[in-house]
Amino acid sequence: MGAGYIGLEVAENLLARGLTVTVIEKLDAPMGAVLDSDMASAVVDAMRNAGVDLRLGTSVTGFTVSDGRVTAVETEAGPVEADLVVIGLGVRANTELARAAGIAVGESGGIIVDEQLRTGTPHVWAAGDCVESRHRVTGRGVVMALGTHANKQGRAAGTNIAGGEARFDGVLGTAITKFQQLEIARTGLTEHEAAASGLDAFAVTTEASNRAGYYPGAQSMRIKIVAERQTGRLLGAQIVGGEDAGKRIDVLATALWNGMTVQEMGGMDLSYAPPFSPVWDPVLLAAGKAAAEV
Amino acid sequence: MGAGYIGLEVAENLLARGLTVTVIEKLDAPMGAVLDSDMASAVVDAMRNAGVDLRLGTSVTGFTVSDGRVTAVETEAGPVEADLVVIGLGVRANTELARAAGIAVGESGGIIVDEQLRTGTPHVWAAGDCVESRHRVTGRGVVMALGTHANKQGRAAGTNIAGGEARFDGVLGTAITKFQQLEIARTGLTEHEAAASGLDAFAVTTEASNRAGYYPGAQSMRIKIVAERQTGRLLGAQIVGGEDAGKRIDVLATALWNGMTVQEMGGMDLSYAPPFSPVWDPVLLAAGKAAAEV
Repeated sequence: MGAGYIGLEVAENLLARGLTVTVIEKLDAPMGAVLDSDMASAVVDAMRNAGVDLRLGTSVTGFTVSDGRVTAVETEAGPVEADLVVIGLGVRANTELARAAGIAVGESGGIIVDEQLRTGTPHVWAAGDCVESRHRVTGRGVVMALGTHANKQGRAAGTNIAGGEARFDGVLGTAITKFQQLEIARTGLTEHEAAASGLDAFAVTTEASNRAGYYPGAQSMRIKIVAERQTGRLLGAQIVGGEDAGKRIDVLATALWNGMTVQEMGGMDLSYAPPFSPVWDPVLLAAGKAAAEV
Repeated sequence: MGAGYIGLEVAENLLARGLTVTVIEKLDAPMGAVLDSDMASAVVDAMRNAGVDLRLGTSVTGFTVSDGRVTAVETEAGPVEADLVVIGLGVRANTELARAAGIAVGESGGIIVDEQLRTGTPHVWAAGDCVESRHRVTGRGVVMALGTHANKQGRAAGTNIAGGEARFDGVLGTAITKFQQLEIARTGLTEHEAAASGLDAFAVTTEASNRAGYYPGAQSMRIKIVAERQTGRLLGAQIVGGEDAGKRIDVLATALWNGMTVQEMGGMDLSYAPPFSPVWDPVLLAAGKAAAEV
């Protein structure tokens, strides 16, 4: 399997059942579609420390099948024996029905819809993994197969079809997962994606604690902030760390939703008590460090 | 002691050391300065279930002292024997020095400063628990003795004194605490405070799970949203609940900082994975329920 969201969860579950797990990933880092490689290094460490045989930069070329069962995965670097193979290849919008019906499909490969989830064909709405959504940072149409988006779109489309009024206001690509105790989250653009979008971006990474340093059970997290060089406008963020690290992405997603700059974010009034945060929450520290670069 | 932030933490620590704990509180609910009484009921239950003898609506009238040691707390309802007494009476800005120096003090009782922490007297700055801060929801000057504000103000004042440029952008009164496993947090105005501020506000309360319902360890939380009736503008929020409930207040604080309406908040792109959240995060559910009332 590839080392994306599903790959991580499957690997964790198979390990917990006592199986020997090998992960074969074509890219040079796990979760390449959602994390910058510097942030993914913590995922690499966690997987290898847990006993996963993680083979990066390796393409699967085929399978060896005997008596109707897979016995090995063939790779560029030789075969890997296996009793069980799980394949994670990503997601592509299935728009065959829409195309056959003459409904417009965008360059992203998703069905084009407006904010009310109407397709270009009267009386036809579309929602979920098959549609193109507006990315709020770039303004471009993207296909993102996330359950959060599909749920919101389905509700909005249903409301509109039934004569109500509801909008779907675009996506940031906010997502979270974990591998054992390591929490992993992102929102907006990675540094790599920002550059690919033609934005003049910079990135800073901050190490911070989830609690007051003296409080029992304090664990560290790493937050990477991507921002626009001239303005300081937040473009995206990534978090990798221990307990209570991941869900802090929602604070960054809310700031991003509102188009905040890192300068303004550094002054936000977030909560503090020793069991929950240092006096300066990691999000404030990360924003402050980024603000110093603008 | 009173049942405010400090009272809760002290009570928890004394209980953990095996002491019998009585809490005497003048108001009819604990944390009266920071929570609406309907939200405080969960705090009452947690304290009483933990064995705290919580006496609400009871005024302390004096102390019985014998051989230089307190032996009892006198109340309107009779004496309470005690080996150790902890007094929590709240905080008042100490502006004696400022007043003596002719520095202007506001109606709130705090020293008046501008966004650069300058007092009305040239070359004098002030920061911390003694100053009046601008409440971002009401626009009024308030004294709030929170370490997060004092830290940010000290940093901004120091930067300005040293010839740099830094602002303090006001407060929301975001705060968090816990009693044993119960997490308690608030930001902005309570329903009570909104009414006292002359705002036409309404409130809705939502019960939601911290994780996907089927995920091991799922626990419930209660989120109360206070919003402006005509516009749906968020005015404040309170959270009381189990694991991972409290820090969600920062998402609400970030929305409040940006002046969002509950209608817009319901569509935000927050993170989801079963170990961290239902598909609709509790914050989205709470905002959506409030939006239906606008």
